[in-house]
Amino acid sequence: MNNLSQMRIQKPAHEIFEAFVDPEKIGKFWFSSSSERWEAGKTVTLKYEEYDAQGEIRILEIQEHQKIIFLWAGNHKVTITIVQEEKGSTVVKVKEEGFDETNENVISQLLDNKEGWVYMLTCLKGYMEYGVDLRAALVK
Amino acid sequence: MNNLSQMRIQKPAHEIFEAFVDPEKIGKFWFSSSSERWEAGKTVTLKYEEYDAQGEIRILEIQEHQKIIFLWAGNHKVTITIVQEEKGSTVVKVKEEGFDETNENVISQLLDNKEGWVYMLTCLKGYMEYGVDLRAALVK
Repeated sequence: MNNLSQMRIQKPAHEIFEAFVDPEKIGKFWFSSSSERWEAGKTVTLKYEEYDAQGEIRILEIQEHQKIIFLWAGNHKVTITIVQEEKGSTVVKVKEEGFDETNENVISQLLDNKEGWVYMLTCLKGYMEYGVDLRAALVK
Repeated sequence: MNNLSQMRIQKPAHEIFEAFVDPEKIGKFWFSSSSERWEAGKTVTLKYEEYDAQGEIRILEIQEHQKIIFLWAGNHKVTITIVQEEKGSTVVKVKEEGFDETNENVISQLLDNKEGWVYMLTCLKGYMEYGVDLRAALVK
């Protein structure tokens, strides 16, 4: 069981890749901070100050400008695929795997997860295309 | 079974209410067009040109600047509640009801529905706060 979300962004793939891996940029569209540049094998601490939350991710694989795979949240595997298109746009795909179908709360877990990824991707689009900050506005 | 999504937007409630009901505004953050101003008792045609889609909604109730209730998609009931906060911000809550728990595709229906509402709310935030257009970028 997995959750897949995909967004088209009018920017080249290498700029979008940098937005994820560069700790100076993540605070413009997702977490408030990232402890260091994302590289394969690293464990990175992500903080979300507005929600008083933090967690670690373990980066399994990086393909420059194309793919990022990491583990978080109880060994859920997240694959971010960055696909450059012909006319200068890019499709960003986020797939999260590892949901336990037998858990009685799996539907609400999937919905929360979907909410988070779609929100992040739309914030990323706003930041990349217009430089605007739409973060920290989901109300739970 | 229902789906609830909530977003904080740094604009007053009456401006957000107008963005939904005024056919000149909906095309900046949601459907490409709305056939007329939303009022209780009306049936309104919404088009989404980019996805070659259209549908009708039946407006059940309007509370000026506070609430919009309509039916769509097989009698699903949608309630949009617009809650003004003290410091000038507003929380927009969207609840959709009517999912059939016995349908074998109910989880994917809920996830698609969650994706659509979170995307619309984030586009609304971008439009209201910065005047930017983030529409028609979800890839299915």
